Amino acid sequence: MATSQKASPRDRLLDAAARLSYREGVSIGIEALCRAAGVSKRSMYQLFDSKEAMLAASLERGIPWYEARFTHPAAQAASPRERILYVFEQLERASEDTGYHGCPYLAVLVELKNPEHPASKVARAVKERLAAAFRDEAARGGARDPELLARQLLLVFDGASARAGAGVERLADGLATATATALLDAAGVGPTGTA
Amino acid sequence: MATSQKASPRDRLLDAAARLSYREGVSIGIEALCRAAGVSKRSMYQLFDSKEAMLAASLERGIPWYEARFTHPAAQAASPRERILYVFEQLERASEDTGYHGCPYLAVLVELKNPEHPASKVARAVKERLAAAFRDEAARGGARDPELLARQLLLVFDGASARAGAGVERLADGLATATATALLDAAGVGPTGTA
Repeated sequence: MATSQKASPRDRLLDAAARLSYREGVSIGIEALCRAAGVSKRSMYQLFDSKEAMLAASLERGIPWYEARFTHPAAQAASPRERILYVFEQLERASEDTGYHGCPYLAVLVELKNPEHPASKVARAVKERLAAAFRDEAARGGARDPELLARQLLLVFDGASARAGAGVERLADGLATATATALLDAAGVGPTGTA
Repeated sequence: MATSQKASPRDRLLDAAARLSYREGVSIGIEALCRAAGVSKRSMYQLFDSKEAMLAASLERGIPWYEARFTHPAAQAASPRERILYVFEQLERASEDTGYHGCPYLAVLVELKNPEHPASKVARAVKERLAAAFRDEAARGGARDPELLARQLLLVFDGASARAGAGVERLADGLATATATALLDAAGVGPTGTA
């Protein structure tokens, strides 16, 4: 995301926090963040209580964009199975981007190792919302155990994102979609489920 | 792992690097590592070229223990399917440990975001060896596409480890095993595959 020179110091800091923590990890220093944003440390501490709060706010701000990416463009016409598989197709597409390092919310959880960190709480909420969406679709699609299927799909989603992000797997051949398809079939969510 | 007071400075450093980077992340400072090991920075740099090299060596040293954990105790008598599922049962057991933060090799890959880092190379080799083991077992068990099944199983393995390690999932009810079972079934690796 290119930031306009006219962006506010707050927006510049949130952009820098999102961009640099994704690329370098959450241990990125405050000095580097402020330098990238062109904002003094003093101004930063006037805007945010802490680096933790700034990181959490930067993750929070990215949620609408992140979630829109996984929403089927013809959601009304699509079946639950199609809407679920679309999430994995989009993950596969995203993983081909230059500079892809996996799902930013999973990465933050893995890196912080602290569920009480404000950024972990934001990330956890994003993951819970995706699980709830999978569960709802699984129920609509007639899954025998919608809760189990949703949890299985999250294992695949996060495993695929972590592995592709770390450069130990490539998803371009449809690996994530194929795996999700096998789990949908096993759970009884067929191609002709009710929409 | 408790370290004997008689352990060499090298072993104390490797223990500290493994323990602290697992608990706090790879960004843990050299000062903290040397303090925990009771070794001066000067001695550390006589033993290792860099913190990177020390981290890689600490991961390398843990491989035999890590891999033994996933080897079926009655490997000769077990079927390929049983040997594969044993890996997931052991993952589920490990995830219940206090202080579990997921697979240390996956965590390092996610945190470093740099495939050229010496520690990333060690982690990648561990992941490739597990993929090869899954592929061999899948072939022995009659999988239609052993390579595909192995890659799918790795998505589940790493997804389960990352999610449980981050505290957003619990595996104690057999989630990982159930997911692997569905994929084995879909790939045609039945309970009565040849051993």
